[in-house]
Amino acid sequence: MQMFDLTGEDDRIRFSPFCWRARTAMALKGLNCEYVPWRFTETARLEQSGQGRVPVLVDTERDRVVHDSWAIAVYLDETYPDQPVMRDDAARASARLVETWTNHVLFPPLRPLAVEPVHRLLGETDGAYFKESREAALKAPLAEVSSPDAQGKATADLARVLRTLEPTLSEHDFLGGTAPYYGDCIVFGTLMWPYIVNPGFALEGAPATGRWFERMLDVGDGGGRKALRAPA
Amino acid sequence: MQMFDLTGEDDRIRFSPFCWRARTAMALKGLNCEYVPWRFTETARLEQSGQGRVPVLVDTERDRVVHDSWAIAVYLDETYPDQPVMRDDAARASARLVETWTNHVLFPPLRPLAVEPVHRLLGETDGAYFKESREAALKAPLAEVSSPDAQGKATADLARVLRTLEPTLSEHDFLGGTAPYYGDCIVFGTLMWPYIVNPGFALEGAPATGRWFERMLDVGDGGGRKALRAPA
Repeated sequence: MQMFDLTGEDDRIRFSPFCWRARTAMALKGLNCEYVPWRFTETARLEQSGQGRVPVLVDTERDRVVHDSWAIAVYLDETYPDQPVMRDDAARASARLVETWTNHVLFPPLRPLAVEPVHRLLGETDGAYFKESREAALKAPLAEVSSPDAQGKATADLARVLRTLEPTLSEHDFLGGTAPYYGDCIVFGTLMWPYIVNPGFALEGAPATGRWFERMLDVGDGGGRKALRAPA
Repeated sequence: MQMFDLTGEDDRIRFSPFCWRARTAMALKGLNCEYVPWRFTETARLEQSGQGRVPVLVDTERDRVVHDSWAIAVYLDETYPDQPVMRDDAARASARLVETWTNHVLFPPLRPLAVEPVHRLLGETDGAYFKESREAALKAPLAEVSSPDAQGKATADLARVLRTLEPTLSEHDFLGGTAPYYGDCIVFGTLMWPYIVNPGFALEGAPATGRWFERMLDVGDGGGRKALRAPA
């Protein structure tokens, strides 16, 4: 299998939160996959998926192309049922709740900590695309989104948001209980975004979540632990 | 079994979100329990539990007294393992996340919709206690906490917060998937608070959650459906 995986000028640095969700699911299932570097403006290379965003999984042996991190996790469980990341309907329901919470609540405070650092990792063409599209979506210059003030506020907001995870991760090793499941992949993959691009990023004020993040860096083949981070 | 259950002047109206969590768990398990009316200032009647808040479960046959809605759900599953509300470690981890989200995120917008209506249901002694303790905790007069402006803002906030449940409840009948689990009891029990005390309460802008709430009113013996609500 191959998965298109977002990168910037240095194609060893992989920072997409959605790619990390799918990569972590792949690692939990113990499946082999080649992570093919892909850049924001290379949409033509994803043509076979019928859309222009990553992750895109190409399962050459079965002649299947799947896009969207959730759809990839579901596809992997259906096609390779060993070591499921969502073993039943209850796990799918619970992971969907974690996904929605992550997208609606956890994402916003990560944005000021990641957006400008991502921009610095991009080459000229991707950088121009990223700046224009993100500034249009956020209705503010990147420098303002990631200003020191905005980063300070985001760090405080993040600590407050992470309090929702603390009781669970104080009592259990993973959001899935004794073993990680796709809900863990979703939150972990999302936190990999600032972790990879922002050398100053830390999970402050959420000690149980911090210990869980360290455990997640080592799941599967330890892909998270070995990942190259942006230089300071 | 007996459970002390919060009420006001009319002891047929039961409105505690924490008592409803435990009652719904009891109903899901198909267990019989007498719900004994208890009022805010009757702390002496809870002496055997070593604290002064409800729900308090008295399991006379086994000579056990358990307080706190979470502890009651765990006790019921351990003692009466048929039809578990949390069947394994994964379910406990997931329900704990739902509980924390409910307490931190869902509760605040419900407060303006419930606090003053609760106050109107209380007799003189309980009403004075409630007003003083809640105004001290909230640092504002009850009339301000539940002002029309505050209720309008709370209704908008609630619709935004409930968006976190919508994808899961669009795709599954319950937060537990095909069957309800303790996570469903937590959210449902909490929403019973404004539903019982505020005749104008509605789950606006969250259609899948609204349909799920109707299903939850009928679980077990349909105790939710038959519950008496405050008159308009």
